[in-house]
Amino acid sequence: MGQAATTAVSGCSFCRIVAGQDEAQLVLETHEIVAFLDRRPVFKGHVLVVPRQHVDTLTDLPQEQIQPLFSAASAVAQAVKDGLGAQGSFVAVNNTVSQSVPHLHVHVVPRTKGDGLRGFFWPRTTYAEGEPEDYAHRLREALAHPPGLR
Amino acid sequence: MGQAATTAVSGCSFCRIVAGQDEAQLVLETHEIVAFLDRRPVFKGHVLVVPRQHVDTLTDLPQEQIQPLFSAASAVAQAVKDGLGAQGSFVAVNNTVSQSVPHLHVHVVPRTKGDGLRGFFWPRTTYAEGEPEDYAHRLREALAHPPGLR
Repeated sequence: MGQAATTAVSGCSFCRIVAGQDEAQLVLETHEIVAFLDRRPVFKGHVLVVPRQHVDTLTDLPQEQIQPLFSAASAVAQAVKDGLGAQGSFVAVNNTVSQSVPHLHVHVVPRTKGDGLRGFFWPRTTYAEGEPEDYAHRLREALAHPPGLR
Repeated sequence: MGQAATTAVSGCSFCRIVAGQDEAQLVLETHEIVAFLDRRPVFKGHVLVVPRQHVDTLTDLPQEQIQPLFSAASAVAQAVKDGLGAQGSFVAVNNTVSQSVPHLHVHVVPRTKGDGLRGFFWPRTTYAEGEPEDYAHRLREALAHPPGLR
């Protein structure tokens, strides 16, 4: 591993991989990110893309790190098609809830039609009358002055 | 809707929302993206963030659109906490497989511990001996010259 993390958090297993202190099957390294195989994949070829800089969740990631992280995730999403023959991919971030390691990581999972992974997106719920307007209003209020947007 | 899409695809339901031709509960609009409530939410407050420019999947998104899209998704992930009281969020993109509308969209789903959504990330599989090295090698080969990375 060429570049040590400057923000390594003691006891963080992904900081240890970034720093080269723990082994991983690396698939991509850039100045900002490291990508490696998840050891317990949803499907084989399941990659985790992590920023070298330790942040807990997506909302903690500095604006200038967003393009490097998701550009890498996009490249890996292409690679699971080109390199593994997947038909598509699932790109996902768990923030806090269901997040097993509190170092931001983007899952890139190879997908194939009929792979049995209806997964997360079922079942759906429905809104009662008036609820969509209420939820949208509360979100708009919370988004009145988001950073990094124009 | 202030800004019409210049790349609207006939018959695309998200292009129609971007162009203001179909109604949606909007939560955020920028020069590059529109965010609105999913009509069939995984949980109430489930938002879709879409680029105004029609592209099918993440790997089709131009590099300069990556930061605007995921910066907006990050802002919405913060908003579901600030505005709806969620403890965390799930941010995800289905590319091709399990993608119901072929216009790139980032799901931002409010999450709360114990919400019942073990979801996508269970069960996991395991690699046979030698397989991790093989998969990582194939991905590295496919990633030899990814765009937008340095």
